[in-house]
Amino acid sequence: MHTTFQIETRGQGSYEVTPQIAAWVKGRGDGLLTLLVRHTSCSLLIQENADPEVQTDLLAWISRAVPPATDPSMCYLTHTYEGPDDMPGHIRAALLPVTLGIPVMGGRMRLGTWQGIFLFEHRSAPHRREIAAHFRAD
Amino acid sequence: MHTTFQIETRGQGSYEVTPQIAAWVKGRGDGLLTLLVRHTSCSLLIQENADPEVQTDLLAWISRAVPPATDPSMCYLTHTYEGPDDMPGHIRAALLPVTLGIPVMGGRMRLGTWQGIFLFEHRSAPHRREIAAHFRAD
Amino acid sequence: MHTTFQIETRGQGSYEVTPQIAAWVKGRGDGLLTLLVRHTSCSLLIQENADPEVQTDLLAWISRAVPPATDPSMCYLTHTYEGPDDMPGHIRAALLPVTLGIPVMGGRMRLGTWQGIFLFEHRSAPHRREIAAHFRAD
Repeated sequence: MHTTFQIETRGQGSYEVTPQIAAWVKGRGDGLLTLLVRHTSCSLLIQENADPEVQTDLLAWISRAVPPATDPSMCYLTHTYEGPDDMPGHIRAALLPVTLGIPVMGGRMRLGTWQGIFLFEHRSAPHRREIAAHFRAD
Repeated sequence: MHTTFQIETRGQGSYEVTPQIAAWVKGRGDGLLTLLVRHTSCSLLIQENADPEVQTDLLAWISRAVPPATDPSMCYLTHTYEGPDDMPGHIRAALLPVTLGIPVMGGRMRLGTWQGIFLFEHRSAPHRREIAAHFRAD
Repeated sequence: MHTTFQIETRGQGSYEVTPQIAAWVKGRGDGLLTLLVRHTSCSLLIQENADPEVQTDLLAWISRAVPPATDPSMCYLTHTYEGPDDMPGHIRAALLPVTLGIPVMGGRMRLGTWQGIFLFEHRSAPHRREIAAHFRAD
């Protein structure tokens, strides 16, 4: 009922994890799936997974709303010793979800037609990320 | 234990859904309610439901923070062929929640006095929206 | 399986609640923890709890992104009679989470090494805040 998904990231952006999560709940009947990303500089999004431009634009928006610490608008930051993408990564991880609750029926997540689950990485360097997952059958 | 709520929206803004959800959990005793909105351009908010000006101001803020694609500040967007409110709707749906977990005691959601549940629509045209709901009794 | 945590806040900022929540789930085995903050002007964050500068910077960012109603950029707000920090508090409470779902194994939350749980207060005056908590054993 508990597992951990591991995702290797290669810089900022979206990494779809829908297939491995769908495979894990398949055959488990009805219940509730809960996901928690175990890090403070990445997020867990349910987003459009049909057109990759959506992910590109989302990254472009957040990169302007919460720019790197080297941007003059971020001159007030104090937690900067881990690099210019670190504190902005924490802010982005506060703004965007880190936990998701998803009803499951007949072994399928009740996502909409266009919804996929993404790990959204906020750091520039490659990272190994973990998503804690819990499924409870009804 | 599973159901779907349907909401007809008529443009951007907040649509309170507290009464129908409260009616569905009534009489079910103690447990956990989970809600998931099955779309990529609307959100699910727990917000102040006493003064409608709160919803007006919230829409005004998000409309400035994530303006339509026709706004010069959004010139970098690439996913624009579904209209100027489409990609901003996806961004708003990443920023604001799409899932909620709500403890229930004695058939009542443990919301605070001023809290209501709203579907927050990001598209200008009318849409039929679905909220997947799951209740698990203790 | 249900409880309520009470937190006394003394102005805007982060109040860590990890220890009391960890103590409550300790010894309960495997299951799912759900938290809901019962207010419309504070949030519930999972964030870095090693360096207090992270919390300072997060408050600095949100104070610029959603400034007080007295800021000229917020002149369009209409819900202002409860003070300049009230409507911005509602907006911040829409942006940042109010519910969290956390898998628990062996009586321990499956948080990452650097993650803590914080009540994030958006109002300037002291407030007594409540977090509704639910634990369901597997």
